[in-house]
Amino acid sequence: MPRRDLGPRTLLYPMPALLVGVYDAEGRPNLMTAAWGGICNSTPPCVTVSVRPSRWTHDNLLRQGAFTVGIPSTSLAAQADFAGITSGRSQDKFAATGLTPCRSSHVDAPYAEECPVVLECRLLQHVSLPSHTMMIGEICNVSALESCMDGDHPDMGKVDPLVYDAGGRRYYRVGSEVAPAYSLGTVYRREQEK
Amino acid sequence: MPRRDLGPRTLLYPMPALLVGVYDAEGRPNLMTAAWGGICNSTPPCVTVSVRPSRWTHDNLLRQGAFTVGIPSTSLAAQADFAGITSGRSQDKFAATGLTPCRSSHVDAPYAEECPVVLECRLLQHVSLPSHTMMIGEICNVSALESCMDGDHPDMGKVDPLVYDAGGRRYYRVGSEVAPAYSLGTVYRREQEK
Repeated sequence: MPRRDLGPRTLLYPMPALLVGVYDAEGRPNLMTAAWGGICNSTPPCVTVSVRPSRWTHDNLLRQGAFTVGIPSTSLAAQADFAGITSGRSQDKFAATGLTPCRSSHVDAPYAEECPVVLECRLLQHVSLPSHTMMIGEICNVSALESCMDGDHPDMGKVDPLVYDAGGRRYYRVGSEVAPAYSLGTVYRREQEK
Repeated sequence: MPRRDLGPRTLLYPMPALLVGVYDAEGRPNLMTAAWGGICNSTPPCVTVSVRPSRWTHDNLLRQGAFTVGIPSTSLAAQADFAGITSGRSQDKFAATGLTPCRSSHVDAPYAEECPVVLECRLLQHVSLPSHTMMIGEICNVSALESCMDGDHPDMGKVDPLVYDAGGRRYYRVGSEVAPAYSLGTVYRREQEK
């Protein structure tokens, strides 16, 4: 199967579009869209988001020691895109987009009420990398809109998360279910293990 | 909008299912499926994957200082699921699944030829977290199947990446395009900025 070398590139599939919520020194809420992030630890649950030192969010997050990670649904695509191309230094992104700022109940950080799922994080550690600072947050709580729940967990179809394509510079939605996990793979187990 | 607190949970949307490829001390190739990971730096491009110390991949990755991150398409869901529920300590996952092991051209690590996109990584740094070790890899090269390319980047529909739902323990596919990025959000720009 012929392959092409694309060189060093920041490609990963799927990639999220995360709304990082932080208060500034005056207590003003801000959101920054970040695609560089992911879960990094199970016990306790932890998440990373990487932020350039030049970003308004960078020093605010380090000072506050707390942040939220909001998951935008596809209906919030324009608001999420705006939060990625604008700085909170010069603009109130909540006012501009009409998103509703809420104070987290578990950490001192804001989030947009419209996000179906929000991770409330305490800054555990940060790692200085060449172009970004990787913020490692302990997830103190996850909250979800009641309307998005299916039993004890959020329903993928109702969350309808935005997917970012860093190659094509586009947003996608999540589609249909492929299969349940932790069972599909058992077809490859050797007979004696079944 | 009523919300429910779910407590500390490893939830993020969307979440990938990554095939981490490493050689063991005898040069045998192995794959481990990891959902804890994401891009973490732009220049140079870097990616994180978190691995439990008990995993066969853990010490092999640290010893080799190199790994690959393969993106499985939905057609590889069963193979990816198997690579997450089986240990390379006791089983040759390539032989069991029929995936084809290839040696990377840029780093000393294997990958499955069937993966539409593969990141070839040099271990830059690792961070010991409470339950996992976060491996930070510098992406030395990304390769993609020619059949998945659209101009100079992989096409989302052709890559057809597997999406993992840690809440519902299911796999999904990526669906249709929502909008192009970096333009959608300009509707919220103030008049004087346009």
